[in-house]
Amino acid sequence: MKLENLKKHRFIERLESILGQENVISHPDDLLVYEYDGSVDQSIPEVVVLPCSTEQVSQILELAYQEGIPVSGRGSGTGLSGGAIASPGGMQVVFTKMNHILQVDTQNRTATVEPGVINLDLDTYARKLGMRYAPDPSSQKACSLGGNIAENAGGPHCLAYGTTTNHVLSMEVVLEDGSIVQMGGPSRFIPGYDLRGTFIGSEGTFGIATKITVRLLPLPEIVKTFLGVFPNIESACSAVSAIIGHGIVPAALEMIDSTTIKAVQSVMDAGYPEGAGAVLLVELEGLVEEVEEIETEVQASLWETGAVDVKIAEDPEDREKLWSGRKTAFGSFGAIAPNYYLVDGVVPRTKLVEVLRLVGDLSQRYGIVIANVFHAGDGNLHPCMLFDEREPGISDKVMAAASELMEYCAAVGGTLSGEHGIGLEKKEFMPLVFNPDDMNAMKQARNAFAPKNNLNPGKIFPDGSEPYLSPQKETSPGLYI
Amino acid sequence: MKLENLKKHRFIERLESILGQENVISHPDDLLVYEYDGSVDQSIPEVVVLPCSTEQVSQILELAYQEGIPVSGRGSGTGLSGGAIASPGGMQVVFTKMNHILQVDTQNRTATVEPGVINLDLDTYARKLGMRYAPDPSSQKACSLGGNIAENAGGPHCLAYGTTTNHVLSMEVVLEDGSIVQMGGPSRFIPGYDLRGTFIGSEGTFGIATKITVRLLPLPEIVKTFLGVFPNIESACSAVSAIIGHGIVPAALEMIDSTTIKAVQSVMDAGYPEGAGAVLLVELEGLVEEVEEIETEVQASLWETGAVDVKIAEDPEDREKLWSGRKTAFGSFGAIAPNYYLVDGVVPRTKLVEVLRLVGDLSQRYGIVIANVFHAGDGNLHPCMLFDEREPGISDKVMAAASELMEYCAAVGGTLSGEHGIGLEKKEFMPLVFNPDDMNAMKQARNAFAPKNNLNPGKIFPDGSEPYLSPQKETSPGLYI
Repeated sequence: MKLENLKKHRFIERLESILGQENVISHPDDLLVYEYDGSVDQSIPEVVVLPCSTEQVSQILELAYQEGIPVSGRGSGTGLSGGAIASPGGMQVVFTKMNHILQVDTQNRTATVEPGVINLDLDTYARKLGMRYAPDPSSQKACSLGGNIAENAGGPHCLAYGTTTNHVLSMEVVLEDGSIVQMGGPSRFIPGYDLRGTFIGSEGTFGIATKITVRLLPLPEIVKTFLGVFPNIESACSAVSAIIGHGIVPAALEMIDSTTIKAVQSVMDAGYPEGAGAVLLVELEGLVEEVEEIETEVQASLWETGAVDVKIAEDPEDREKLWSGRKTAFGSFGAIAPNYYLVDGVVPRTKLVEVLRLVGDLSQRYGIVIANVFHAGDGNLHPCMLFDEREPGISDKVMAAASELMEYCAAVGGTLSGEHGIGLEKKEFMPLVFNPDDMNAMKQARNAFAPKNNLNPGKIFPDGSEPYLSPQKETSPGLYI
Repeated sequence: MKLENLKKHRFIERLESILGQENVISHPDDLLVYEYDGSVDQSIPEVVVLPCSTEQVSQILELAYQEGIPVSGRGSGTGLSGGAIASPGGMQVVFTKMNHILQVDTQNRTATVEPGVINLDLDTYARKLGMRYAPDPSSQKACSLGGNIAENAGGPHCLAYGTTTNHVLSMEVVLEDGSIVQMGGPSRFIPGYDLRGTFIGSEGTFGIATKITVRLLPLPEIVKTFLGVFPNIESACSAVSAIIGHGIVPAALEMIDSTTIKAVQSVMDAGYPEGAGAVLLVELEGLVEEVEEIETEVQASLWETGAVDVKIAEDPEDREKLWSGRKTAFGSFGAIAPNYYLVDGVVPRTKLVEVLRLVGDLSQRYGIVIANVFHAGDGNLHPCMLFDEREPGISDKVMAAASELMEYCAAVGGTLSGEHGIGLEKKEFMPLVFNPDDMNAMKQARNAFAPKNNLNPGKIFPDGSEPYLSPQKETSPGLYI
């Protein structure tokens, strides 16, 4: 047995003594399941563990820290930037077994959950009690609260309610050396430093949340969804400007272009007219009188900017149909091409028409089909480049097109990512919006939590940027065999 | 000339060469102005500087860092926890001259300002353009945006709109060694770590913000303010529960007790009935139809829980009158006693009646008048202990009573501070809500920004807690002469 094999063998034995054999996966066939997440990246972990408690997470992180084995957390693996992909030679901590809703406080409207709880399961549970959990990523049927925290996940309704960071009150967190700390508190008032705020969205590099307390919101009295049908994407963009310009903040304001409409309608009937140049989903919610007043203005905005039709869905079934199209969009792209690369760029809303023109231009120049389905109210684009990775040279073209788009977003005062994180996919673009001093400050912050950089190493920051900082940095040798 | 005097002399000369003589204050008589802030703490700085640009701030911080002179930032000195008080032997950086509104973007609803801009001045400017700046501390006529960021300031309208951290998009920040970094970005989407979030509320210990971009909100269509008059504070608390229980989140929900009513009415006529046991200020805003619908429920809640009268203010003058009483409250306590100590505790809303009973009990046991005026909707108490510091032993009694109250807040799942910070005043209470590991994590985070702990040292953490952490910590000798 080689030394490396021996090391790995002993490491796995110690994991098994902490977690039990049934919660440690190391056979190559079984590990294949954990190779991908929702992004185009891939890497097979050396070992996968399924802890059942905070204490177990603490013990295995301490062990990995001592042995220099990099650790990546994984909820459901739905992320789109490679955040849950194992770091080379590393261990993946998977939260499938820590999936319990521990407590719901209806009076103070909070819920305390384990990180493996599925986003929609929490929301469904809360709705039975007359409340809801607001952040609703498109992957909400599958994605976990722990992953939502790592990526500071958004969703269509984040236009009105903000992203995950606006809804998490406190967390119990295990740091890289196995120590357990509390961040945040029982209300939004936090004395001392807001470590909670900087932890959320740190993409698994600061620590691993093992218990999470979130705010729940009361249910609105009424919800109404409008589908504006437009001849082209420019007129739909004008409608976005008109609605926002009236001072209206809808609960959601989603744009779906003709390519996406075709893809969606080819796999299900979401009620999107196939000939349309674009549709705009506008959701209003609140008190009955309030929605009635805003509704008039929204409808006027849609018609005045060139809508050829406006459909209204009031009952839950009709609304569900309109939304299921939006939420199925990414899945439906499989009908066009086997792979997609999603650019999660952000632009000021006033630049929407201009950036979509660039997307069309890129599509033509590089010969790539690009579908647009995005959070228009936030200026958060999601151009999806559809391709077949088996086509020679296509991946380079996709990256070149994405690169041009990222550069544009940064140049007009936007940014690289709205809600999917930087991870592996966007890390080389970071210098477009941050200079070395800014990134240095970020890495110094990471060193406060994870000075050995043993959690999700190799993510967020460009390759080769590591050496210029981090005096404490030690190289994790990993578990290469 | 003694060595220390020589050091001080040379330091001041170098400051003068950077800022010009007129912007460096070192005469003992002139320094007296900077001895106090809004808290009960005091300390005379060794030197006060008035920079005019980010570059100047960078140069003087670098100089102080090299010389080991501790630095405290100061906006208007209205803070209530000692955050702006100079650290011993230290320099105070005062932002009176960096008070310009640099840019307002009406399309994207943002404003970029210098840190010395007064909160109300920004709001007034924005209102002329049909927008507003939401966080409205009671001291908004005097307090500065830079100070608001340091303390993550709140205000009555933070019930609906959140505190300063929810409204700041980005900052240019000077760190202790003089380096300049950007935090946050042009929208709420921030790739990489949210350093912005952890910087806000770090009470001047992470760095000094020199340029701030904030979100502005559109003005509501209508604003209506209600004054519920109650026979006692218990019935007013029931009204709070009833309103919130209906799923209504008013723009503001403020409680004022009988002691405060008397104090306010003795200095001005705010329209608060003098015999009342408590009054509740409820502000509703939004669309006309929306407010009309909620109004009915709010009025019903007030009457059903025992209100003896409900006054309605619709026109700006009447509303201004009701609010001026609330905002004058702290000032009016001078009519009762020369000093006050404000306990900024937070409890779950469901514990309001219980904690106010304890406040009454403490008042009797310690023989201290305690006035209550607070953000009821948030469970954020502000019991004000009114006393005369010249009375022998009274300060100890005040601290003992405050201590019992803090312990209670922590025990029932609340916390130490809603919006005024920890600073010098509350630092010894930190162990009530954080264990050494939690505080250690916070200090590690501070070390990421200010490893020498040269900015506002001695604040936030209990005395004597410094040694167990911070391996890089160096002692700043200061400028003692």
